[in-house]
Amino acid sequence: MQWITVLRTASSRTQHLPVQFRILRWFSSHLPNQVTEDAKKQLSHQQNAGASKGNPILKVPKGTRDFSPKQMAIREKIFSTIISCFKRHGAVTIDTPVFELKELLQENYGEEAKLIYDLEDQGGEMLSLRYDLTVPFARFLAMNKIKRCKRYHIAKVYRRDSPSIKRGRFREFIQCDFDIAGQYDPMIPDAECLKVMHEILTALQVGDFHIKINDRRILQGIFTICGIPEIKFERICSTLDKLDKISWEEVKNEMILEDGISPECVNCISEYVQLHGGPGLIEKLLKDPKLVQNRLVMEGLEDMKLLFEYLTLFGIIDQVSLHLSLARGLAYYTGVIYEAVLLCQKHSRPNESLSLRSVAGGGRYDELVAKFDSKGHKVPCVGLSIGVERLFSIIEQNNEMSKQKIRTIETQVLVATPQKNFLAFKMKLISELWNAGIKAEMLYKKNPRLLEQLQYCEETGIPLAVIVGEQELNDGIVKLRDVVTRKEVNIPQESFIEEIKRRLEKYNT
Amino acid sequence: MQWITVLRTASSRTQHLPVQFRILRWFSSHLPNQVTEDAKKQLSHQQNAGASKGNPILKVPKGTRDFSPKQMAIREKIFSTIISCFKRHGAVTIDTPVFELKELLQENYGEEAKLIYDLEDQGGEMLSLRYDLTVPFARFLAMNKIKRCKRYHIAKVYRRDSPSIKRGRFREFIQCDFDIAGQYDPMIPDAECLKVMHEILTALQVGDFHIKINDRRILQGIFTICGIPEIKFERICSTLDKLDKISWEEVKNEMILEDGISPECVNCISEYVQLHGGPGLIEKLLKDPKLVQNRLVMEGLEDMKLLFEYLTLFGIIDQVSLHLSLARGLAYYTGVIYEAVLLCQKHSRPNESLSLRSVAGGGRYDELVAKFDSKGHKVPCVGLSIGVERLFSIIEQNNEMSKQKIRTIETQVLVATPQKNFLAFKMKLISELWNAGIKAEMLYKKNPRLLEQLQYCEETGIPLAVIVGEQELNDGIVKLRDVVTRKEVNIPQESFIEEIKRRLEKYNT
Repeated sequence: MQWITVLRTASSRTQHLPVQFRILRWFSSHLPNQVTEDAKKQLSHQQNAGASKGNPILKVPKGTRDFSPKQMAIREKIFSTIISCFKRHGAVTIDTPVFELKELLQENYGEEAKLIYDLEDQGGEMLSLRYDLTVPFARFLAMNKIKRCKRYHIAKVYRRDSPSIKRGRFREFIQCDFDIAGQYDPMIPDAECLKVMHEILTALQVGDFHIKINDRRILQGIFTICGIPEIKFERICSTLDKLDKISWEEVKNEMILEDGISPECVNCISEYVQLHGGPGLIEKLLKDPKLVQNRLVMEGLEDMKLLFEYLTLFGIIDQVSLHLSLARGLAYYTGVIYEAVLLCQKHSRPNESLSLRSVAGGGRYDELVAKFDSKGHKVPCVGLSIGVERLFSIIEQNNEMSKQKIRTIETQVLVATPQKNFLAFKMKLISELWNAGIKAEMLYKKNPRLLEQLQYCEETGIPLAVIVGEQELNDGIVKLRDVVTRKEVNIPQESFIEEIKRRLEKYNT
Repeated sequence: MQWITVLRTASSRTQHLPVQFRILRWFSSHLPNQVTEDAKKQLSHQQNAGASKGNPILKVPKGTRDFSPKQMAIREKIFSTIISCFKRHGAVTIDTPVFELKELLQENYGEEAKLIYDLEDQGGEMLSLRYDLTVPFARFLAMNKIKRCKRYHIAKVYRRDSPSIKRGRFREFIQCDFDIAGQYDPMIPDAECLKVMHEILTALQVGDFHIKINDRRILQGIFTICGIPEIKFERICSTLDKLDKISWEEVKNEMILEDGISPECVNCISEYVQLHGGPGLIEKLLKDPKLVQNRLVMEGLEDMKLLFEYLTLFGIIDQVSLHLSLARGLAYYTGVIYEAVLLCQKHSRPNESLSLRSVAGGGRYDELVAKFDSKGHKVPCVGLSIGVERLFSIIEQNNEMSKQKIRTIETQVLVATPQKNFLAFKMKLISELWNAGIKAEMLYKKNPRLLEQLQYCEETGIPLAVIVGEQELNDGIVKLRDVVTRKEVNIPQESFIEEIKRRLEKYNT
């Protein structure tokens, strides 16, 4: 097969270079206004770099990004908020490889499987980059014969989708998943997933949000009642899922023209899927003469009633409602499904599509693990995924608008000197600070100017400076300077660590 | 090109399946004794799963691993120790994509480049999985025209090497890198890197260690003096780098027979590279009549002298020495290089090769960023990499030997009941706990038995149980049980959160 590899390599080398440039040019000319300055700078660097000759093209792959120290500081705060919530609910964490056997992934995403990244056959197994964290989780459960597990997993996933900064769609992005696997009494873990989602969105302070809930069984029952053949259920779910991007009229047209559903059936569906509400609506539907005849719908509605009771006890009922139009794209859902949308972003545009506001989602998938188990043993699962990339871009924007200063380092003390030839003394002092667990820096210069050292403190938010010179060395003291107030005190050298620790504690409280 | 894709897919599907099985069988029959129980179990699952028919092959790709909750708990403790040291030294963090443009990676690893994973050409750019974090860092600096940066990066890298559990060699593994980029006064950042390495290995408590230091300039100077042509320098470095795996006699033979160096030259090299020692050796070498004639060696030795002065000030001189045999494999090093080895592991075998004990390494690479910069601007860099996978397997083994119990969850309180039909009350209470930031769980059963609930606490190390029943509900109290001492006290419902917080603080101190 070697000649084929050669052919491929040669052709792709010559063919694709110009395409990269074209994409790059398109990408930057379609930059939306709300793109952050950081992203703009990055793109312009990519262009400049791409234009230079002789050197390798200096860019990141299409649809991927570097994150600067400032961006990472924001991201880490988001992750730590999310992880502390996951841990508050007793979740463990696992890790799985970034690639899986190709055949293992290929069969679980339906139409979406075309977006999977494959690795080249370099002699060995056929591998693909993971598309989400759910299928690897199901594989992990089946492989290790685990029947119960509450786990979170925060990791990168890969989709060869058309990237769009505006829509926050990237080819490499982080998923934050929380799932509860195991056979339990109905709707208790489902309710906890919704509570987790609610806690995280509240803690991240991204404004008001609402959680739409539905159940695949209710949807499928309604489809049956309206006379849609079972084979078209998944297709109709996909079409319905577009409701956050296009209008109900357009969805109806697509159902009739593209999915081949009769106008009568579409009207029947229409009657139901436009309904949304709380416990009152559930009661009404439980008595609906058409619905009562369908077992699946009744099961779904009874569970929904129970779920709403639990959500009331959890105190989050005001932010949730049953939305019969909610379908969710993925094929593996079997029961309750949900999606959180931001109601009004601080800096949202009036014409912004609703899909930009979807920031979390999830649902129940009771059959996926069985697909991997050699004996087909079922492990029912329910879970949620936090749309952390979208939340990151909202929070990053909010920070920029509010001109909030973000520290990228945590340094507490700078060891400084106003005089020459004090490097050795500074090194001894900073070593003591490090050994005592204090975050300390000094400039990597033998003889830096004091002003430069103090400016570094101010720029990077270092609260304390230890200043040493001839006088201090002779007197066996160090000068401790509060960078903000500029007040200085002399401290005996033998107790300067304790004094600094005491002061740092004060800063923290 | 579509017919080629079809051909490839068809052929690889049928060709590679039997190979996978053969590899799997080989892999498990070659399992060393010291492999952990976890890994063994995992492999046996993979075999069982592979043997079943009808379902997809249930295994992870060759040379990769899942990590269980218990393993993740150990790993996270290691990462947090490492990160806190990196932050103590004022480092920021960045993130880069897991894949880069293929051409960008291909040229920087010499012979090793054959181990790079390529992505399939699915119409677009030619991409490869990153091989380390150093080249992406250099690309990041050049692309963003950053002249100074102290950053750490902890992330997965990929090498299509022959995997070996025994040697702790995997195809997917995490690198923990800390680098200082920028033009500074000599050896100050270099000394800090060694201090960072020292602090981390000390904090991880993996036993005594020693850091070997050398300088590529000293090595190259010695090669010149011994009459080795410059074109063979890199090759000789690679051969020398095998000294931790094979004996000096074998290395000598390889130099003569494979690298084509004359026995006289090898003897000349031999005279120098077997030397190791501290400041005394440096002084001696500075006066060596042959060495004084080579500018490069003298530069390297003068810097080494300065470095040792700084390491004395940092108080780590006892764990470092100049080893003229240290070469390090990678091509991009230009100055000081270092490697930390464990002197004696708690559970090491007598015949264990030295290479198993190498747990950290790094050095100075002053030319790499310039390779990416369109104008060839230099950004001198020095850095280190912690061999976290090897350290993980040592720490995991130590934990297993000491039968230390590892908590995989952080849950502080279980909400329990001895009676039926108390789910609603429990849900109200647990919700209050969560909202107060307390880590709480309850079993997902309407009516679990009390014994089962208390056993769950004991098994998972939950210190407190809140117990509620008929009596407690009527009296407006909750029962608080200390799981270890089994002591129970009644607390008024309105103050149970405060009481729990008070007790948890006590547990933490």
